[in-house]
Amino acid sequence: MSKVTIKNEAITSRDEDFAKWYTDVCRKAELMDYSSVKGFIIYRPYGYAIWEQIQKHLDVKFKETGHENVYMPLVIPTSLFQKEKDHVEGFAPETLVATHGGDENIIDPLIIRPTSEVLFCEHFAKIVNSHRDLPKLYNQWCSVVRWEKTTRPFLRGAEFLWQEGHTIHATEEEARHEALQMLQIYDDMGRDLLAIPFTTGIKTEKEKFAGAVETYGVEALMHDGKALQSGTTHYFGTGFAEAFGISFQDKDNALKPVHQTSWGVSTRLIGAVIMVHGDDNGLVLPPHVAPTQVVIIPIQQNKPGVLGKAREIAETLKGLGLRVKVDESDRTPGWKFSEWEMKGVPLRLEIGPRDIENEVIQAAKRNDGHKETIAFSDLSKEVPALLELIQSEMYQKACEFVKTHTTRVNEYEDFNHVLNEVTGYAEMMWCGDQGCIDKIKEDFAATARVMPFDKEAFNDHCPVCKRKAEKVVLVAKAY
Amino acid sequence: MSKVTIKNEAITSRDEDFAKWYTDVCRKAELMDYSSVKGFIIYRPYGYAIWEQIQKHLDVKFKETGHENVYMPLVIPTSLFQKEKDHVEGFAPETLVATHGGDENIIDPLIIRPTSEVLFCEHFAKIVNSHRDLPKLYNQWCSVVRWEKTTRPFLRGAEFLWQEGHTIHATEEEARHEALQMLQIYDDMGRDLLAIPFTTGIKTEKEKFAGAVETYGVEALMHDGKALQSGTTHYFGTGFAEAFGISFQDKDNALKPVHQTSWGVSTRLIGAVIMVHGDDNGLVLPPHVAPTQVVIIPIQQNKPGVLGKAREIAETLKGLGLRVKVDESDRTPGWKFSEWEMKGVPLRLEIGPRDIENEVIQAAKRNDGHKETIAFSDLSKEVPALLELIQSEMYQKACEFVKTHTTRVNEYEDFNHVLNEVTGYAEMMWCGDQGCIDKIKEDFAATARVMPFDKEAFNDHCPVCKRKAEKVVLVAKAY
Repeated sequence: MSKVTIKNEAITSRDEDFAKWYTDVCRKAELMDYSSVKGFIIYRPYGYAIWEQIQKHLDVKFKETGHENVYMPLVIPTSLFQKEKDHVEGFAPETLVATHGGDENIIDPLIIRPTSEVLFCEHFAKIVNSHRDLPKLYNQWCSVVRWEKTTRPFLRGAEFLWQEGHTIHATEEEARHEALQMLQIYDDMGRDLLAIPFTTGIKTEKEKFAGAVETYGVEALMHDGKALQSGTTHYFGTGFAEAFGISFQDKDNALKPVHQTSWGVSTRLIGAVIMVHGDDNGLVLPPHVAPTQVVIIPIQQNKPGVLGKAREIAETLKGLGLRVKVDESDRTPGWKFSEWEMKGVPLRLEIGPRDIENEVIQAAKRNDGHKETIAFSDLSKEVPALLELIQSEMYQKACEFVKTHTTRVNEYEDFNHVLNEVTGYAEMMWCGDQGCIDKIKEDFAATARVMPFDKEAFNDHCPVCKRKAEKVVLVAKAY
Repeated sequence: MSKVTIKNEAITSRDEDFAKWYTDVCRKAELMDYSSVKGFIIYRPYGYAIWEQIQKHLDVKFKETGHENVYMPLVIPTSLFQKEKDHVEGFAPETLVATHGGDENIIDPLIIRPTSEVLFCEHFAKIVNSHRDLPKLYNQWCSVVRWEKTTRPFLRGAEFLWQEGHTIHATEEEARHEALQMLQIYDDMGRDLLAIPFTTGIKTEKEKFAGAVETYGVEALMHDGKALQSGTTHYFGTGFAEAFGISFQDKDNALKPVHQTSWGVSTRLIGAVIMVHGDDNGLVLPPHVAPTQVVIIPIQQNKPGVLGKAREIAETLKGLGLRVKVDESDRTPGWKFSEWEMKGVPLRLEIGPRDIENEVIQAAKRNDGHKETIAFSDLSKEVPALLELIQSEMYQKACEFVKTHTTRVNEYEDFNHVLNEVTGYAEMMWCGDQGCIDKIKEDFAATARVMPFDKEAFNDHCPVCKRKAEKVVLVAKAY
């Protein structure tokens, strides 16, 4: 076993400039490209294929839990958009508005959907009459548009791809259960697909979605110690139902408003994968989400038998359900190594004339550079096992990072050290006063990420105001 | 065996008013609903699920033939849109244009994509340098917007869902092959998935896509004898490449423009399925594309053992990979029968206490109403066999319809009988002069649908002008 230590010179190193490293990886790994309109990016095949893996995983989970896919219009008339007060205040400042269609001026200008709550509400009001019509468990895969001033690939865009779930229920209990169930599906997806340990919890009043009674979130910690909100689920209560007249005749004959939820994750998850797992040689993809899990590099590929054997092995591995590519291009092996390293393919297999003679293949793990020799006869057992090992090592490493970057803060003077030197989450007891969080924001540019479900009180006062505190909150700088 | 003859009173009959029958089916089968913006429809779960089946089928075929999915921006700056002259003339009159983002006026107003050729071209120009970079075989699943004055669910909408393939190649031969290969994939999909026999061929000069050198099409014949263009593929030559500067250094070191194609099918295919197969009781879905292939109706479902047995049979059939639903709602069996008939589920199974005693189930085929009794022990063999039989019967029936609705026209005076009484395709020899087609359009409101690949000359003169004619063209009224 030996370590790969070649540094890929094409990208900035993470320590030198993390933001530049990030955009370098986005472009050099061919995940995306810029278009001529700011904030509207092109999802190139390799980036889109990661999103397809996420879609495939989640779509199965959504359907297993009884959800159905629908598609709502791209546009929302301004008058409809204004029906729910909190909601319009939250989104109006960043809407893209269409005012002309063909040769007509549009009287009620059309907002390109920033999110589709109001469209679902208008439809629900039409199709729901009786308790027999409930619940409705809908999901939509689409793109949404938010006219953001500052944009970064995958993390914040004028347009991004997402799924938005919208459900209505007869009771509060059922709707709250739905919001938590979907949070659990996101949390599981983080672990099982992306090898990212999410922190789950409740958002503070200020960080809630526009129009929600409760917002739950999954939060991830990036390599630079900043947090990334990676998905949210919302319990809306009956606010939208009352604004839009979504009511039903219950079993007791009373007319009641429905209880509503919505929930979503977006292509932001691609950004999370890049920033949690990437290294100075580029992308490092967890095998479960990698579009290509194994790349086979033929050595001296013009020698008789080399390409044939490489293809034969590829077919064998594909037969096991693995996603495999043979790089048959006329580049040098060295060029291919760094290309596929940059693209983060989890496992590289090299095969040349001598390997064929010895009936072995050389394997190199992308996540830690370890190499080993595998006998042809062991390939069908060893390659899947190595991929599972890589997935598990990457998840463990990410868990360890969260652990070493979560620091309890008992006194206000410790925030500077925790947020600026250790970096990551500052775990604090909170009195519940937004003023205390605002002060931290002002002094350290950090915000309340989430009040985690699994953290217990470790102290009895708020480090900002010294008043009594019962809630635990994680504070961090964030994307 | 007996025939079901109950007429569903909820919908207009096809003979009475085909257009009203169509919208009745769209709404009563819960395929779609209208939104508050004209032409922007809501794809309800049952309608969207049909689209998902089409997507799943095609996405596999696209990937098997080496295509990769990408996602391009939703918006096109007006200045970019205007770069290819024919293209902009074709689409400009029906664009939706965004002029405001947040609190800004947008200087170069953004067109909501009616199709994405120019976006792909701009990107291709950036990423292609050498023959090594070719071909690029891209596809995109998305929605597009065309500000149409007259709209009909699935057939013509201000917004519709589609896929658009965009490819670039080093040679004309390769690009032309691509356009024909994708046409073949559409044609196969018609037969294998939708049970629709498409007619394939070349579009006349006038019916070509804006900017294309050659447009190929798949055309289908609806129950009312009108044709529906169901998919097109285009060979662009080097026109876009020259307008956008997409060139590459070839093996001979010469700088050459790429040869380009595009191809697409849309949710219009859902309209085709409705109008080819539907009857006076509603939708009739071919088993391969049906979201639910088998519905099980428990009879006297409160009697002990009935629901249990229904669920057990459902699990057995699901285990075979079939899409099965048990209707456990508290409606009467009669209500359920007509509900699932309306929704076109290919096979209905009924099971009650007496059937359980006799270890049989009653099966009813949606396409022709035939009923039969199946022993429990034969279910795993008989149900899949019945579904295959239904698929094949529906395809054969549709083929027969095309055959009886394709009539050769040798003399101009025969057009009236063929287009207005027989209905369907008038098959004629054509001199190649658009004036002759225009005259038919003026007199009979019919257009040239396609010059079919598989039809041989049957005469030597054009029935309009009597001049020499060598091409066969199919003329029909069309959607």
